[in-house]
Amino acid sequence: MPVGLIAPESLDPVKGIQLATGFAGVRKSGTDDLTLMALCEGSSTAAVFTRNAFCAAPVLIARQYLAQQSPRFLMINAGNANAGTGDAGMRDAHGLCQHLADTAGCEARQVLPFSTGVIGERLPCDSMLAAIPDTVAKLGDDNWLAAAHAIMTTDIVPKGLSRKLDLDGLSISITGIAKGSGMIRPDMATMLSFIGTDVAVSPALLQQCLEHAVERSFNRITVDGETSTNDACVLVATGKAGNPNIDSDTHPHFALLQQAIDEVCVWLAQAIVRDGEGATRFVTVTVDEARTRDEACAVAYTIAHSPLVKTAIFGQDPNWGRILAAVGRAGVDDLQIDDVKIHLGDVCIVRDGGRDPDYTEEMGLRVMAESEISIRVALGRGNVTDTVWTSDLSYDYVKINADYRT
Amino acid sequence: MPVGLIAPESLDPVKGIQLATGFAGVRKSGTDDLTLMALCEGSSTAAVFTRNAFCAAPVLIARQYLAQQSPRFLMINAGNANAGTGDAGMRDAHGLCQHLADTAGCEARQVLPFSTGVIGERLPCDSMLAAIPDTVAKLGDDNWLAAAHAIMTTDIVPKGLSRKLDLDGLSISITGIAKGSGMIRPDMATMLSFIGTDVAVSPALLQQCLEHAVERSFNRITVDGETSTNDACVLVATGKAGNPNIDSDTHPHFALLQQAIDEVCVWLAQAIVRDGEGATRFVTVTVDEARTRDEACAVAYTIAHSPLVKTAIFGQDPNWGRILAAVGRAGVDDLQIDDVKIHLGDVCIVRDGGRDPDYTEEMGLRVMAESEISIRVALGRGNVTDTVWTSDLSYDYVKINADYRT
Repeated sequence: MPVGLIAPESLDPVKGIQLATGFAGVRKSGTDDLTLMALCEGSSTAAVFTRNAFCAAPVLIARQYLAQQSPRFLMINAGNANAGTGDAGMRDAHGLCQHLADTAGCEARQVLPFSTGVIGERLPCDSMLAAIPDTVAKLGDDNWLAAAHAIMTTDIVPKGLSRKLDLDGLSISITGIAKGSGMIRPDMATMLSFIGTDVAVSPALLQQCLEHAVERSFNRITVDGETSTNDACVLVATGKAGNPNIDSDTHPHFALLQQAIDEVCVWLAQAIVRDGEGATRFVTVTVDEARTRDEACAVAYTIAHSPLVKTAIFGQDPNWGRILAAVGRAGVDDLQIDDVKIHLGDVCIVRDGGRDPDYTEEMGLRVMAESEISIRVALGRGNVTDTVWTSDLSYDYVKINADYRT
Repeated sequence: MPVGLIAPESLDPVKGIQLATGFAGVRKSGTDDLTLMALCEGSSTAAVFTRNAFCAAPVLIARQYLAQQSPRFLMINAGNANAGTGDAGMRDAHGLCQHLADTAGCEARQVLPFSTGVIGERLPCDSMLAAIPDTVAKLGDDNWLAAAHAIMTTDIVPKGLSRKLDLDGLSISITGIAKGSGMIRPDMATMLSFIGTDVAVSPALLQQCLEHAVERSFNRITVDGETSTNDACVLVATGKAGNPNIDSDTHPHFALLQQAIDEVCVWLAQAIVRDGEGATRFVTVTVDEARTRDEACAVAYTIAHSPLVKTAIFGQDPNWGRILAAVGRAGVDDLQIDDVKIHLGDVCIVRDGGRDPDYTEEMGLRVMAESEISIRVALGRGNVTDTVWTSDLSYDYVKINADYRT
């Protein structure tokens, strides 16, 4: 069950973006599996994609199209990743983009395709092509929540957030949605996430803003250490809010925008972990006093990926020895155990190379009984801090993934 | 349940090595938890230890003593790792070595201590000290099988193997035992394993022989990607067989000895995986056509550690897309998906960037129904091959590790 996460009741429209969802025969369940997002002329689009060496066909195409043209449509299907499908998968995705372009009156390369779901199956193109015109006809301002539903796969809860940003009395809208629950260990990118805002901002700054936010949010979460073939995060700015264009990163509004986008991305990224496959706990792993960011992240991810730490958290067992062992195998040169301190929540469990003398099992059990767990490791060798968010490893993770296709 | 692994009916004695087991109050179950191995004067001892930065007290002491003196005793306790115990843990281990030395009439630094079990608890030294004299009194040639039992923790099956090696008509004995089931991802070392032989061989060659064998055996297995704080593998050669001393790696007998030790180590390493926590499948991951050994191992371990691949194997699901995604995130530069071929058993599942056109789900299901699964990935960019052995990820892995201490 998701940890501290409830479905949004509503999501705000963003001037210049229209959405629609439809059923295109991809999912067996019969629920909407096709999402279209229409972007007004003049909008800017920034995106980051998976670094998995085997990108899915839609990722390859979206990256290529985005470099050529400003997109007018995002087309997302759930239930099939169109990954590991070779040349046929590329033809399928191209054909779908062309059909949407013909229907809506734009060029194929102004349509960015996104797919998520099972790897290695061909898309059901006939039913998808047939569904496109009806879906285009339904485009409207107020369909963000329907889109948050339609992009889900093993997600239990739709993930979306709206924020208002005040720029000198002018109200800017930001709405973001995301999907993801398993195969979560984004690498310089994220699971599927789409964020729209009506702010006016230069394209290069928008990309800088997105990369900054992703590095602190989607690139700091893990459910199972698996990097998807289809991860993508897209940020669209339509410029319809009427603010003076933000054209420099020294512009006083840029820092405000960056902060708002960071907050939306962190919320969405944490929502993915809270809805992680089989999750019963939301875990924040913070590493302090590291020499470098790489070393802080290496320690944090080693803990966050450790099956033994994750099963102990599922079992509500304050088994700090497993945390210690994970820190020790994280590959940090010359790490001195005597300098390391480990806290579980507000309880110091390890110092001076062993269990804190004041620690009692009862103190550990109290922390582990919470649904939100914090693990803090101070390495005692520098002043860099970084944080990773993860979930526990439960029976249900195994059940979901042993049974996914059957 | 262990996969294709049954307990040995007997293990051969090794001239010059005596063993005894006793109950020293470490385990709650009341079964023998203390093992002593007495090594005759003149024997050579080689060892490799964990590279976890946080070594347990016994590992620090064993490494230090071994550099100073030829050991006369190995002292092993199961049920408590004496790791993360700080200075107190060092004093405990020193005191136990001193007591055994006093009882048996040798120096403390001729006793190498080994511990395995829960991390972060102090050893029950009083009951251990009390048990040492009785255990010394029981030393005998024929207790290898009892020792294989007494060193177990979450292991279900005791692991041991005896081999005879013929050197120009002279019969050499080799017997090895090992323990390990979880926290298995040895790094330049292994879980606890003790191998004895009566061959005469120079100490430096014995160390070379052990490192060669470990690199191909214990360093190629993983259950859960976790490197223990206490891993150690020890090879003792007593020289009592009467063979002319093997004093050079060009000696004709050295290659025969190396081959025999390799075989024993591979068997024991595979036995640990077959008895991996919650294992229902034994999986061989082979990577061919890599440019370097590092890249072959990176791909093999990424597959072998993938929770999604491991749960699919548990679910008997030929979900080759997860294997493909794991290869793609293994960090190999410029990997071309079109050059990669993947086989499940004898069935080609991926070629030319997608599913093999001749592949059918029935073919995959047939392979996945076996208890021994082979995954073979050809990278199409070199001629290096390497192999890693692993198990699947089942409900029982979660159960064992969520409940371990409670």
